[in-house]
This record gives sequence, C-alpha cells and structure tokens, in this order.
Amino acid sequence: MSKSLKLGLCQIPVSKDKTRNLQMARAAVKEAVLAGSQLVALPEMFNCPYDNKYFAQYAEEFPQGETLQMLSHLARAESVYLVGGSLPEREANRLYNSCFIFGPQGELLARHRKVHLFDIDIPGGISFRESDTLTPGDQITTFNTPFCRVGVAICYDIRFPELTRLMALQGIKLLILPAAFNMTTGPAHWELTMRARALDNQIYVAAVSPARDERASYVAYGHTMVADPWGNVIAQSAEKPQVLTVDIDLARLADIRAQLPLLKHRRADIY
Amino acid sequence: MSKSLKLGLCQIPVSKDKTRNLQMARAAVKEAVLAGSQLVALPEMFNCPYDNKYFAQYAEEFPQGETLQMLSHLARAESVYLVGGSLPEREANRLYNSCFIFGPQGELLARHRKVHLFDIDIPGGISFRESDTLTPGDQITTFNTPFCRVGVAICYDIRFPELTRLMALQGIKLLILPAAFNMTTGPAHWELTMRARALDNQIYVAAVSPARDERASYVAYGHTMVADPWGNVIAQSAEKPQVLTVDIDLARLADIRAQLPLLKHRRADIY
Repeated sequence: MSKSLKLGLCQIPVSKDKTRNLQMARAAVKEAVLAGSQLVALPEMFNCPYDNKYFAQYAEEFPQGETLQMLSHLARAESVYLVGGSLPEREANRLYNSCFIFGPQGELLARHRKVHLFDIDIPGGISFRESDTLTPGDQITTFNTPFCRVGVAICYDIRFPELTRLMALQGIKLLILPAAFNMTTGPAHWELTMRARALDNQIYVAAVSPARDERASYVAYGHTMVADPWGNVIAQSAEKPQVLTVDIDLARLADIRAQLPLLKHRRADIY
Repeated sequence: MSKSLKLGLCQIPVSKDKTRNLQMARAAVKEAVLAGSQLVALPEMFNCPYDNKYFAQYAEEFPQGETLQMLSHLARAESVYLVGGSLPEREANRLYNSCFIFGPQGELLARHRKVHLFDIDIPGGISFRESDTLTPGDQITTFNTPFCRVGVAICYDIRFPELTRLMALQGIKLLILPAAFNMTTGPAHWELTMRARALDNQIYVAAVSPARDERASYVAYGHTMVADPWGNVIAQSAEKPQVLTVDIDLARLADIRAQLPLLKHRRADIY
C-alpha cells in the first residue's frame, strides 16, 4: 500500500445539454490527471439536471450508455481510477441514482446505487422527493486500489452514520461522496456531516458537488471538500467550477488511529 | 408530554477538596432551580480530580456514599430531576466512572457506568489511561421524565455514534453528557461531535464540563453547551464557572423530524 495519493475532485457545471455535460466532465478529469491526480471523482448527477422530470430522459443502461462508455474510455486513456459521480441508471424499467467506478484499464470496479433516497419538505426551504422516480439500492460499496480500500456513497447516504461505519469496518480509508446538497442543507450541514464522518471513522471524506447554478430548479451548494481523519477541512472549493487536487496522507491517518484508537475501542458486545 | 423544558447545566470548579466540591455542586444546582430549571446536570467527576491516582480514594458505594446521599436529598429538596454528573463508584472491589440520576422525590431513576474508557496517547498532547483503574459499564442508559425520554452517556462514550443512535431508537429527545474533554481534544472535537450527534439523531445534546483549572493535572476544556436537532449550538459557556440555563423546545424537534425524517429513512434492512 502507498503512503499517499493525489485526489482530483471535479466541481463541474451541469446543464440541460448532455453533450456539454460530458465535455465538461472529460475536460475536468483530464485537467485533474495533468495535475497529478491518481483517483478522480465527478459530482452527483453530472450528466443530467438534478430534477425528477429529467431522470428518465437522461437515464442510461450499463454498459452501452453514452456516458458510461465515455467514463470507461476516459479512465483507460488517462490510466486513472475514476469515480463517475452519478447518473440516472435504467435497468428493467427501474431508475437508480448510480455511481460507476472504473479502473485504469477501463474496467468496471464497482457500482453504487444510492441507498437512501432524498425526500425532504422544509417550508420556506427545499422540497424534493427522489422516491417519486427512483428506486433505492441495497448494497454497501467499497473497492480496492493500490493506495487503500475506498468507499463510495451518494449524497443523502452520508446522513446515516451506520453506512459509513460499515464501510470503515470493511477497511476503507477514503470515502468518495458525489453529492449535491442545496442552499438550505448546504450551509447548515455540509461541513458538519463530512467532518463528523471523517473524525468518527478516522478516514478521509471527499465530497464532490456540481458547481452552483442559480438558474437551476435545484441549486447545488458547491463547496467540494475533503475532511481528514482528525475532522479538519483540508481543502475546499467555493461555489464556482473548479478542479480541486488534494494530497491524501495515509501515514497521518495511521498516526491518528494509533494515538486515538477509536475503531479499537468500539463495544461490539453492546451494539 | 410537555412541549418544552428548562435545563440547568452546572459548569463548576473541581478541586482536591471533596467537601468544597459538594458545596459547589449544591450551590450550582440551587441556582439552576432558582432560575427555573426542571432538569439539572453536573459535570463528569465533579467530586474528585480527574486523575487515576484519586479515583479509589474518592470512590463511593451506592446508596450510602456521601455524594450520593447529597444528590438524592438535593433532588428531593429542590423537587428537580438531577443528573449527577459522574463520580468514582466502588462495587465489589471494582471502580466505575458512574452517573446516578435522581428524580424529584429523591428516588434513583437510573445509573450509567461509562461504557467506553478513555485511553489516549497523543505525543505533545494528552495521555490518559482510564482502564488502568476503572472497569467499563455494559449498559445503555435512558430514563423517562414528564418532558421526554432522556439518555445519559459519559464523555468518551459520545465518540461512538452507535451508542447515541441506540438511545435515539429507544426514543430519547435529549442526551445529557457529563464530560471533560481536554485542551487537545476540546478545541478540535467538542463542538463537532456534539453537533453531529444532535443532527444525525435529531435530538438535543447537552454536554456538561467542569470549569477549566489550569493547575490541574488534567485540564478540562469547559465550554458546557447545548446543540439542537438541526446541529446548531444554541447555548455555550466559556471556560469559567457558570450555571447555564437553556430552554429546550420539543415542538421544534418535532418540526425538524417531520421536515427531514432521518430516523424514518434509516435502512434497517441493510444495517
């Protein structure tokens, strides 16, 4: 296992123009690789506006979908681990909010289907019901890299400490979260939740948002960020498009786990 | 069930003088009740310096111990729910870090023995090994009041999201945490951890610290605080002695749970 890796997080704009979305994604991944990134991640719903009325129209089937082909080819061409944000996936007349992860030979390493669908109704704030169109996944998703084991969850999944904990117990040291918090939950909970999951599980948490688009029906918060295993924010974008590259220090993670051995102090006899 | 309650949190100084510690506790509880508090809490190890070499000397057995008698009589005299911080408890030649909770008739409502012992070693920071002298408890502790179900944990217990989650699933709406974070972990993790547990479980979290004493072998952080179910800090002391009274709005808690139903969205089929 390596002692560090360079992560590239692509906070790209997402519009109704799917071809443009794919161009933006491709350009951002290439920029991240040029900057030395060994693992690159895209945001939630990066090929499609985050809006129930578009999910069916933009949905793709694996492996032939246009976006999925692009991701596989791009991972191979750039010889990089690529966490493909998320997109609407169709299988057998059902739609999922799915992340496909490709390895440096373009091979599919893992697929995560969002497990917790985002149904929220805050008067004067945000209302959204993913469950009107989507079906939830039922699997926890981790995969191996030469750097460390990596977990993937999508946006609202991070609200549930059980999921991250199970991934930590499976040995992940880095969690990648394609996510699109909004202008209500973002300012209130984005940093707090990422930092808490990182601290409690002594892992790095990297959350990748679309860039903010004030004209969209659902306005993403932006603020793509990385929290370290001590609970500190070590890198963060603002709301505009940006490729954020971050060095992930796995030796520091090992030091923190030795000094404050939280995972060893769990009382598995009680819970 | 009431829609609100007034909470009194007693950030008192703790010294080697046990008689003075009990006087401080008594005076602070009376002050909190005078200010209208219906439930009052004391800090971790409020009758004894937080140092392994003192625990045996200051330890008490239930029910005859001097501190325990004082707490029971005080709860009855003031007609208040009293979460008695913690003290070294002796039973059958074992020592525990225990919280005794008394009702307004002076009756014992519950006892929590710290489940996770604090063993930490940070070079240039804090080193402490509770397990050198103490035995861990093995129970989750909740009790009923006319206001809501209340949970109690002690300090390091809060690091483990499983414990708070189990209490939330048992129906608590308020967690009282007698605690003594230190000058390493306090600035880094005190607010973050309390806010995260409150937000994730949609409960109020009240953490009660001793006042800071720079001359002690273990320097407590202070900063007694309450986080609300949206993850906001709604009240906080500085490091000096203070009786903090806080209105706990249970109607607001119900609103938040209706708007963002996290506890209903758990995937109990997966974890």
